[in-house]
Amino acid sequence: MLQKAGIFRFHTESYMCDFTAKVTLPVICNYMLDAASIHAKERGFGYERMLKDNVTWVLSRLSIEMKEYPAQNQSLIVETWVESVVRLFTQRCFRFIDQNGKVIGYARTIWAVIDINTRRPVDILSRLPDLSNYINLEMECPISKMEKISAVENVEPTIGYTVRYSDIDINKHTNSVKYIEHILNIFGLNFFSEKFICKFEMVYLAEGIFGDKVKLYQNKISDNEFIIDTKRCDESLCRSRIVWQPLFSI
Amino acid sequence: MLQKAGIFRFHTESYMCDFTAKVTLPVICNYMLDAASIHAKERGFGYERMLKDNVTWVLSRLSIEMKEYPAQNQSLIVETWVESVVRLFTQRCFRFIDQNGKVIGYARTIWAVIDINTRRPVDILSRLPDLSNYINLEMECPISKMEKISAVENVEPTIGYTVRYSDIDINKHTNSVKYIEHILNIFGLNFFSEKFICKFEMVYLAEGIFGDKVKLYQNKISDNEFIIDTKRCDESLCRSRIVWQPLFSI
Repeated sequence: MLQKAGIFRFHTESYMCDFTAKVTLPVICNYMLDAASIHAKERGFGYERMLKDNVTWVLSRLSIEMKEYPAQNQSLIVETWVESVVRLFTQRCFRFIDQNGKVIGYARTIWAVIDINTRRPVDILSRLPDLSNYINLEMECPISKMEKISAVENVEPTIGYTVRYSDIDINKHTNSVKYIEHILNIFGLNFFSEKFICKFEMVYLAEGIFGDKVKLYQNKISDNEFIIDTKRCDESLCRSRIVWQPLFSI
Repeated sequence: MLQKAGIFRFHTESYMCDFTAKVTLPVICNYMLDAASIHAKERGFGYERMLKDNVTWVLSRLSIEMKEYPAQNQSLIVETWVESVVRLFTQRCFRFIDQNGKVIGYARTIWAVIDINTRRPVDILSRLPDLSNYINLEMECPISKMEKISAVENVEPTIGYTVRYSDIDINKHTNSVKYIEHILNIFGLNFFSEKFICKFEMVYLAEGIFGDKVKLYQNKISDNEFIIDTKRCDESLCRSRIVWQPLFSI
């Protein structure tokens, strides 16, 4: 049996950085999804294997806390492991380690398994009994459990976009990381030059498809905390909480 | 002295693929720019070294021809070399080799060196005399020279967007690859499922900045050939020619 935790090394390239010369949050999320995908595949519960049983993984929630972001041309280690499996959901955690061995962040994701025909969730361990062998109780993920993110209502939308080719993933739905890219586009460049995103939470509620007209609604909780609701008409596709931390603060 | 040509190995990851499970054209372009950047840096004419002399590289033209695109979880070798330097412009070429050693594409780019204060081009060899040592006459790049791409006028715009955080590169201008991502968004998913882009040409004409309101204008030359003009008001920021090839054709 393989080790419970998987260790994946990524190399940050210049085009993965924003104008502050740091790797962007969407790139960190792509690393996570890539690590998760390979970790699952190597242990017998990857996408391809699942599709043979007419089920697939669906990302339901995502919570990331970063102390800092890597610069370009560095190596970044992403560790990932399964924290728990409870009926319809499994929790997968991540730890990010920079090239000097310093832990720079953690993340927790919650996944469902759905039947690809009915699109309904299934009991995970009855379909994937071997998954329980990989539940890792030894590693800790010190991220607070995600609180509910309320809908944003009675405000004008901030920006809107149409779901197009670049937004679509391999399953022909809106790519879960592309939602994040659009959400960050709400903010002016001064946010990114004066602060960094120390916490990002996302709940995925419905699947977007090609051609969807999407609007983003913002609720400003404080100067450093925002709720963004991504809606197709009145239906939330996903909701996120973004917490900024001023640079050079203690 | 280092070898004239640089050889860079990339690993294609799942998130670099579109819904057809192939690596996208923008990702290929990012690989090229990354390889070019490291190749130049290693030979003493990279961005950081240039900035000390108050000059920087600016991408002026790009032409890519692909026979096929790599799938996910494969290695791709990108070779790059300097083909010529003529006064204000240098030509840099690329060859793409898949993990079985098969050449799957070529590209040629044209770069200027500009003074970062005046934004005017400078004579390249007078600033970078050592660059001539790296001109590689042994490798061939069998891509036809780029023809003029005419402005698209007297038509309604196809789509529009505002330049935001995700579009901005490390120099605070619109990222040259993000332009391509937006251009591909003109096309419906049936293009990508039935055809592939066998030739893509781009000429960069002006620098876009944060907040620009951009519109895309399309001239359909044939079912498989399109000119796309990306404009800020009446000014072209870049113009591209896209040639599609039906899949499974000879």
